[in-house]
Amino acid sequence: MAEPQESCTSPEHGLTRVFQVLGKRWTGMIIAALMSGPGHFAELRRAVPGISERMLSDRLAELASLGLVLRCVEEGPPLRVCYRLTEAGLALKPAMVELTRWAEECLPEEGARCPEQFRA
Amino acid sequence: MAEPQESCTSPEHGLTRVFQVLGKRWTGMIIAALMSGPGHFAELRRAVPGISERMLSDRLAELASLGLVLRCVEEGPPLRVCYRLTEAGLALKPAMVELTRWAEECLPEEGARCPEQFRA
Repeated sequence: MAEPQESCTSPEHGLTRVFQVLGKRWTGMIIAALMSGPGHFAELRRAVPGISERMLSDRLAELASLGLVLRCVEEGPPLRVCYRLTEAGLALKPAMVELTRWAEECLPEEGARCPEQFRA
Repeated sequence: MAEPQESCTSPEHGLTRVFQVLGKRWTGMIIAALMSGPGHFAELRRAVPGISERMLSDRLAELASLGLVLRCVEEGPPLRVCYRLTEAGLALKPAMVELTRWAEECLPEEGARCPEQFRA
């Protein structure tokens, strides 16, 4: 019987924390959208197609409580709320670059044809 | 009224595909566990605390259909099934390293907030 040489082990704590954040639907997409620049709520909704108002609002609150997103109020009138990444949020950039490289190499476009099956 | 200079835009297609995969609960943890070595089903369940049998089974099937995980049968008796990352799965390593670095710097253990200096 061929046992695997090295067996799988629990991911380290750092990665566990990462996936507590990025392993929630929409969170990665919101951070990735804000990586290109700050945005108002409506702009963010357009940048993350398919997200509901409620979900975007919840996710932004979670990201703010983690210290990854800042909510800034622009003096009016009209008074507008804008969202941007903090330094901690922007610090995800190198990982995003690596993830993009991986997708281009290893996740073919066809995989995106049937996203429904991956949404459960 | 202070408009943001550069406004947020939709994430590029690569990142969209990435988060269709990693934006599902457990998926990142399973990949991270297999990064340390292949494992039998029971070992994987131990390595990803809290996951149900059903969920692990579903996620492994999704990852196999994406070409990221391979299911290999070890000759018995007893006949055992083992899971390992494919080349495409292993190619996530550099991104995992960056994500770990980010967590250590910006996602504190408490799960609460990142250090003060990164919140601005």
